[in-house]
Amino acid sequence: MNWWLEACKNPSTIAKQQAEQRQLQLTKPTGSLSTLENVAVQLASLQDQVKPNVDFPWICIFAGDHGVMEENISAYPQAVTRQMLQNFTTGGACISVIAKEYNAKLQVIDCGSVGDPYDYQGVERHCISQGTANFVKTVAMNEVQCQAAMQLGKNSADQAFAQNASIYVAGEMGIGNTCSASAVACFLLNESAEKLTGIGTGIRAEQLQHKKNIIDQAIKLHQDYVNGDAFKALCAVGGLEIAAMVGAYIRCAQVGMPMVIDGFISSVAALIAVRLNPPVRDWMLFGHQSAEFGHQRLLAELNAEPLLKLNLRLGEGSGAGAALGLIKLACRLHNHMATFAEAAVIGEKV
Amino acid sequence: MNWWLEACKNPSTIAKQQAEQRQLQLTKPTGSLSTLENVAVQLASLQDQVKPNVDFPWICIFAGDHGVMEENISAYPQAVTRQMLQNFTTGGACISVIAKEYNAKLQVIDCGSVGDPYDYQGVERHCISQGTANFVKTVAMNEVQCQAAMQLGKNSADQAFAQNASIYVAGEMGIGNTCSASAVACFLLNESAEKLTGIGTGIRAEQLQHKKNIIDQAIKLHQDYVNGDAFKALCAVGGLEIAAMVGAYIRCAQVGMPMVIDGFISSVAALIAVRLNPPVRDWMLFGHQSAEFGHQRLLAELNAEPLLKLNLRLGEGSGAGAALGLIKLACRLHNHMATFAEAAVIGEKV
Repeated sequence: MNWWLEACKNPSTIAKQQAEQRQLQLTKPTGSLSTLENVAVQLASLQDQVKPNVDFPWICIFAGDHGVMEENISAYPQAVTRQMLQNFTTGGACISVIAKEYNAKLQVIDCGSVGDPYDYQGVERHCISQGTANFVKTVAMNEVQCQAAMQLGKNSADQAFAQNASIYVAGEMGIGNTCSASAVACFLLNESAEKLTGIGTGIRAEQLQHKKNIIDQAIKLHQDYVNGDAFKALCAVGGLEIAAMVGAYIRCAQVGMPMVIDGFISSVAALIAVRLNPPVRDWMLFGHQSAEFGHQRLLAELNAEPLLKLNLRLGEGSGAGAALGLIKLACRLHNHMATFAEAAVIGEKV
Repeated sequence: MNWWLEACKNPSTIAKQQAEQRQLQLTKPTGSLSTLENVAVQLASLQDQVKPNVDFPWICIFAGDHGVMEENISAYPQAVTRQMLQNFTTGGACISVIAKEYNAKLQVIDCGSVGDPYDYQGVERHCISQGTANFVKTVAMNEVQCQAAMQLGKNSADQAFAQNASIYVAGEMGIGNTCSASAVACFLLNESAEKLTGIGTGIRAEQLQHKKNIIDQAIKLHQDYVNGDAFKALCAVGGLEIAAMVGAYIRCAQVGMPMVIDGFISSVAALIAVRLNPPVRDWMLFGHQSAEFGHQRLLAELNAEPLLKLNLRLGEGSGAGAALGLIKLACRLHNHMATFAEAAVIGEKV
């Protein structure tokens, strides 16, 4: 049996009940902190402690390049993937600033970028190939490559757990990867490109139509191979960084570490993970509804209501990262507000 | 001329342009941080510096009781107003935890609670009266009382400005004050209670209908007196704490200090402030769309799009306070992300 089919940990029903009881005792009208209460209670259940925390978030950026870039489907050149790898570790990228703000570990793993050998301090080089193959012509990854990429994600989650991370965020970097993610989503949701393809980092209208055509071509090419199988969809049109995120998400649920899902690409990885191993869903919080067209459809499929809707469309785990502040605040309120008894406030309604 | 009609400071167009230019240089797809970019640019304009910050937020809770509590329109007893005053300063209330989290000054001003003399350390007692009068029978405040309450808000904003606060949040505490706020909103928007009355801290359906009836009675009683005047609407059916918030908001705009508007009651105060002195609007950020019925209508009137929608309905400035974290993050990203030139990343689209 493949490792990703192994059982997930069960969230704690006892910690959940204790956290719910605590919420009822805090000095506020019943239910008046709504979403912030729910987050604290969910996290209590997942961390198996009545007072949860996000003191040590673990953020891992998985990077990979995409063969489908040959088809001119992105606003930025492929070289940006590599350049951003360095920017993550030198502190200049959006997610670098977020990681610093929330006291998070920022791990950066190159799963397969295109280019000459390099040595960027802090980037873990585990290139499985120089990007994926062009999925309009052949499968993006063979099954061995896809499993190797999933293993990179698994290893990251294992590391985070071993170092007592309180919550896990996976982000991605890969010029062209909204095209790949949309193609995977089309297979998972049995839709055409029209319903699930957006402008990514910002392509023009005529380029968007071209991107949709490319995806529809790929669906035709691979549909007999995929035949409804989420893993094969990932191999056929996915990316190395997307496969790594799938592996990380599944492993988080297996070891029992809560995770925050980011935007469109992250949600495609989340949906693959849930299709492969449905109880993985229990371990997910959703950080942000992205501006990318198609994200709402994915969130509906995942039955998810993100904490934030800020129209971000940056990737890198930035939406999930931005949500860490709110999740932290939810914990602080849950843990530090006074109870009616402690504050001698009347908690009974008239 | 009344002080509140005096001119507001003009936001800086130069700092705004400089901040917009900076956003275009940061290592991310153009516009991809959307709302977070807009917040940073607005704050740059209001703080007149290309790199804005929320290093020292000032939160002031204005408290007051309401004569209309005689009519049984709230889920909690009046005594809770006083009890919560103490809870704010001893650190157990929601806003106390938020203030600590974001390194904010928490000022607590009793504008007129009901009860015996007391001495709670940290509460500034400036009681104008023992609550307002019951507005179903007479005006809630006479004009002298209302002006005195507005002056309390003005003084708080002046203090915050003198101490170099980076941003101002007004919150409120006053059992029964959604009833008062709804009545004011009915006058300002020329609507019946049906359109602008919600469950507040959580009343049952039959009590909600009663609350609406009370408000409609008050509108009939006072409509000749009010006759479209926002200040008179505030006197007729408002509250001491609401009047104080109006004064604080106007003064913030006059001295040039950005503010974050909270939920339903805060937005009613914001709308009064804007009606009395329209350029006050330029200095407002909106923190949170509350669960209270009628808040969306107020926000539309203010042409406001809040940062958060978490279904909070607690008051105390908690929605605005929760938004401080995101505003802080927006500043951090704006100030600390690398430019394309600094990071040697290709910023031109293909």
